[in-house]
Amino acid sequence: MTTLNIDLGERSYPIHIGPGLLARPDLLTGAIGGQNVLIVSNETVAPLYLERVKAALGDYNTQTLVLRDGEQYKTLDELTKIYDKLLELRFDRRCTLIALGGGVIGDMTGFAAASYQRGVNFIQIPTTLLAQVDSSVGGKTGVNHPLGKNMIGAFHQPVAVIADTDSLNTLPDRELRAGLAEVIKYGLLIDFAFFEWLEDNLSGLLQRDTATLSHAIAHCCRIKAQVVANDEREKGQRALLNLGHTFGHAIETGMGYGAWLHGEAVGTGMCMAADLSCRLGRISEADRDRAIALIDAAGLPVKAPSSLTEERFLALMSQDKKVTDKTLNLVLFEQLGHTVLTSDFDDAALRATIRAFTAA
Amino acid sequence: MTTLNIDLGERSYPIHIGPGLLARPDLLTGAIGGQNVLIVSNETVAPLYLERVKAALGDYNTQTLVLRDGEQYKTLDELTKIYDKLLELRFDRRCTLIALGGGVIGDMTGFAAASYQRGVNFIQIPTTLLAQVDSSVGGKTGVNHPLGKNMIGAFHQPVAVIADTDSLNTLPDRELRAGLAEVIKYGLLIDFAFFEWLEDNLSGLLQRDTATLSHAIAHCCRIKAQVVANDEREKGQRALLNLGHTFGHAIETGMGYGAWLHGEAVGTGMCMAADLSCRLGRISEADRDRAIALIDAAGLPVKAPSSLTEERFLALMSQDKKVTDKTLNLVLFEQLGHTVLTSDFDDAALRATIRAFTAA
Repeated sequence: MTTLNIDLGERSYPIHIGPGLLARPDLLTGAIGGQNVLIVSNETVAPLYLERVKAALGDYNTQTLVLRDGEQYKTLDELTKIYDKLLELRFDRRCTLIALGGGVIGDMTGFAAASYQRGVNFIQIPTTLLAQVDSSVGGKTGVNHPLGKNMIGAFHQPVAVIADTDSLNTLPDRELRAGLAEVIKYGLLIDFAFFEWLEDNLSGLLQRDTATLSHAIAHCCRIKAQVVANDEREKGQRALLNLGHTFGHAIETGMGYGAWLHGEAVGTGMCMAADLSCRLGRISEADRDRAIALIDAAGLPVKAPSSLTEERFLALMSQDKKVTDKTLNLVLFEQLGHTVLTSDFDDAALRATIRAFTAA
Repeated sequence: MTTLNIDLGERSYPIHIGPGLLARPDLLTGAIGGQNVLIVSNETVAPLYLERVKAALGDYNTQTLVLRDGEQYKTLDELTKIYDKLLELRFDRRCTLIALGGGVIGDMTGFAAASYQRGVNFIQIPTTLLAQVDSSVGGKTGVNHPLGKNMIGAFHQPVAVIADTDSLNTLPDRELRAGLAEVIKYGLLIDFAFFEWLEDNLSGLLQRDTATLSHAIAHCCRIKAQVVANDEREKGQRALLNLGHTFGHAIETGMGYGAWLHGEAVGTGMCMAADLSCRLGRISEADRDRAIALIDAAGLPVKAPSSLTEERFLALMSQDKKVTDKTLNLVLFEQLGHTVLTSDFDDAALRATIRAFTAA
């Protein structure tokens, strides 16, 4: 087991990574205050792992809530079910919520924990690659609104993250590839050596080689831990973690939540960021193609949906949280492994990228 | 104008108190970043003051949203209207929300600001006595759930509070009296000299004497500012500000939100806290009667509704946020002007108080 620490003063917490961790009561009980625990999971993950986590909790008053699976259910309505359950159970401020599932369950449970009685503890048990390397770490929580991704939410740090790499054994291939998009993101945005390592080790990751996956997860969490510790509230460097996300959110929102997986949209979004950076003369065509090649090799889509028109795509992007006072800010490349958040790009180049990627 | 400061490090903010402040653009504009402003008000307050605030905002892109008036509309559904409006307007993270109204508008707008795009700025312009002395200061935001008051919310500090005492001229008598409950609360919980001042000056307050009201508002805000600065997240002393609230929340929830005004329920709740303290031998009957006499003289109810049975009242109290691990904690008196949060009371005494106050 590898344990990393997110250093945020009194809100610091450990990330445990390794096989067999779901059956380790000590990791859970060390993070729980009070006697009341609500595990929130979804209909896909619950049959696989819920009983194991419940068993590890022993004598706690452990209750469970199983929500529907999919980004289309990351809504205020679904969130309300968590509040209803907590109040029916008469759980008080000293209760602990456990998010058992992927990014959707983690984001919703985290926001419920942020807002129930103005804040209770929660533990992240991410069971997808995407959640293990990205969404479970760093305290971003929230739900979608029909007009935009993650528009309603809070920063609320978990008290522990437990990433059991065994849970990836049951992950569908499509979900594994979606997770690899976020893994590749870390290489592209800040760590060229890791990008090269990914080029060399992609087949091992796709074949779910345990050691290779574990190395990648720990490495990504280490990067994220450092970025979050430096910039918890995304005033600066943390925004770089959104490489590909403004393009990606446009695809997710435009196609209807759940049609594309988040990681798939981010994969295409990173291709578009590389393409725009190339059009602006920031990186070479060779580098652009090299970035796209790795994303392609991971089995991720490298074209946006042709059903989204240029105007619609632009309108969707202008709704992103990275917009400030009408100015669209994008994470663009200085080189592979080095990115900046900037509004310094011309509209014509952005439109050209969108046209190229949405062409039928 | 009196200006107080809530000292919370980088989240510090001013509270301006005085007449004619709604027409002072400088107080508003100093607190606004960006160009986009949404004023949230209700159907009662908007016709009186909305245009004045809008005019003071001059060249900002100022939009407005008018919600229904009343505690029964402090719900997730009504909150959603604020999110919808912000997204329809395509407002980004640099927008500012202004809450123009009483406690319900302040709490809902504050929670919308806490959670829209994971947090945007907001300004409190409280127009009721209750909001001016209590709910607009300190960053508690939230909405009700059918099963409990303020169960969903966040701590999110405003960037400024502007309490225009002129707005009290249009306040209905019943709302004025409800506000006085929270004023009396400060005397009872922490400041016996202020309690005595209130005994001497109650008629001036009820007659809306400007100087007397201004003094009381500033004094209450000064106490609250200090308590909040010492204990922003209510780990200790801040809980004392809930004197009468656990009893009061039971009445509000039990009778249906909006049937009793919050201040009315708190008034009765403080009488019950005094009565229970007396039954426990903490204070004399004379002190209990003295506390109740001031609340009565303020025109507030000093009996709980007889339609609430003892069992129902107890069940409602056990759902309060002051419950931890099944233990009910109450703010009780050591003496008038001195209170503690404690679970040290016997069930029989609590039941006797509830019976006495709910007797037909």
